[in-house]
Amino acid sequence: MQLVIKSGGAQALPEWSEHFREFAPGLQISGRHEPVADPGQVGYALVWEPDPGWLASFPNLKLIISSGAGVDHILADPQLPAHVPIARLVTQETAGEMSEFVLAAALAITKEFKRFANDQAICRWDTPEVPRMMRDMRVGVMGLGYLGSATAALLARTGFPTAGWSRAPAPIAGVDTYGGPQQLPAFLARTDILVCLLPGTEATRGILGAETLAQLPRGAALISVGRGSHMVEPDLLAALDSGQLSQAVLDVFEAEPLPADSPLWRHPGVMITPHCAATPTRRERARYVAELIRRCEAGEPLPNLYDPAKGY
Amino acid sequence: MQLVIKSGGAQALPEWSEHFREFAPGLQISGRHEPVADPGQVGYALVWEPDPGWLASFPNLKLIISSGAGVDHILADPQLPAHVPIARLVTQETAGEMSEFVLAAALAITKEFKRFANDQAICRWDTPEVPRMMRDMRVGVMGLGYLGSATAALLARTGFPTAGWSRAPAPIAGVDTYGGPQQLPAFLARTDILVCLLPGTEATRGILGAETLAQLPRGAALISVGRGSHMVEPDLLAALDSGQLSQAVLDVFEAEPLPADSPLWRHPGVMITPHCAATPTRRERARYVAELIRRCEAGEPLPNLYDPAKGY
Repeated sequence: MQLVIKSGGAQALPEWSEHFREFAPGLQISGRHEPVADPGQVGYALVWEPDPGWLASFPNLKLIISSGAGVDHILADPQLPAHVPIARLVTQETAGEMSEFVLAAALAITKEFKRFANDQAICRWDTPEVPRMMRDMRVGVMGLGYLGSATAALLARTGFPTAGWSRAPAPIAGVDTYGGPQQLPAFLARTDILVCLLPGTEATRGILGAETLAQLPRGAALISVGRGSHMVEPDLLAALDSGQLSQAVLDVFEAEPLPADSPLWRHPGVMITPHCAATPTRRERARYVAELIRRCEAGEPLPNLYDPAKGY
Repeated sequence: MQLVIKSGGAQALPEWSEHFREFAPGLQISGRHEPVADPGQVGYALVWEPDPGWLASFPNLKLIISSGAGVDHILADPQLPAHVPIARLVTQETAGEMSEFVLAAALAITKEFKRFANDQAICRWDTPEVPRMMRDMRVGVMGLGYLGSATAALLARTGFPTAGWSRAPAPIAGVDTYGGPQQLPAFLARTDILVCLLPGTEATRGILGAETLAQLPRGAALISVGRGSHMVEPDLLAALDSGQLSQAVLDVFEAEPLPADSPLWRHPGVMITPHCAATPTRRERARYVAELIRRCEAGEPLPNLYDPAKGY
């Protein structure tokens, strides 16, 4: 049984090997640029961005495992072997990290930390009359998959009035759910802090554009933690400049690292974080992958498989 | 029945009057600089910083009410009539505001938002390997009064391993409590984020100095939201510069507004907020004061009275 890995570069391979020795001692591991004696022996691939054609070079591949929650980088391979199932790597740890990051960002927005940071830069002391409270800020989470539902649940439990929107939402304790395109306007109209945790698909590309942003209440805020492809940068900047949006916390971008000439870096209403909201440790990912391989070998059903009909 | 007010300046008086008409319709109101026909009729004073001797000019004063949680500004009056009880104004709203602010600050510290803000200022993209989690950051709350216990409870409920320290702590659900000077070293040694919510007394003056800070684990963080008198600014700066402290969120200062020449404004590890953590609305305060006066007139016991033996 052999696993090929392209995730984290050559320098990450010793760490991957160590963790797989712990969780799947019988598994043979090789990195992207290591020679594979017999490509026919490779049953599994753990990848983030495969080089075009690389996955197709393994004729007996049983499962492609994304090393993150998204599969868009894998689908971008024009020679992707279409018959091989793709598993998305969404661990409980990822969900916990994402939930905490969004809670921290929503509280920073509520308490206007960016405004105070801007004031601090010019030694300005300007105390608001009354602090804004969680109860004043209605949060709306777009995308209620594993990460989105965990995030909405934590926000609601902590004290934010929280709603969620997805194609076909399942109930979440303490969260109002909205479903499908027809309920999107009502969801946006009641949302003071919009959190985007949708998957990166053709259908969601550019969803954080002028049309969506215009439906939020004036002065709303945005937390973008799903995919960089969601955001229409010029529309976002226009909404910030017009006051339609007051603040944005952005963790994901179309091009990463965010180019130094992007006006987002210097916008007073924007807080940039370097795609750091949720990154499970390699150890947690190795544990998860080992379990996936065990299930696959045992013929058990696999969780979080990519569904071509949905696009994620 | 007459109440004199010195809180928020002359421009706040119409608002105070409006709220007192709602909560105590029979009460006569006058501001600091309005003539009082008969000083002997004044039974109550609502004040933040009384001019020396002003309170002593009302011979039949029954109760002095601080317009905030602290009484240090009132005790600073050398002619303070010592026989008149002083009530501290601590509403449920104040406790809710303080708890949320500290939660927001503790999460911002955990998620290293200040580091990312510094990076953003120079367009630097530097992703940490793994995000820090609430479970990694042990919070310690010094001072377990009404605000401190509410804050410790919210932090513990949200997911921070939380302890509290005070002179004689009462149990708080989910919070480890430490009591008295002999347990202070153990409390500090287990605290990654120190929150100071002690009252401002002679005993707590300078408590956030070299001796206390040196007992925290290296790289700990500080959230100072009690009183400016707690902080020894040169010691704090030295601890930040040596790496003993990694971050500080400071909301209260010895001199406010913080003078423009304070090096705190420009320190990369410091987040300054302009004494905005907890400010109840005038309406909430008027409601609280009206209830205090009602109780006082009815001879009922009064909550949160200043205790000269404790100093707060």
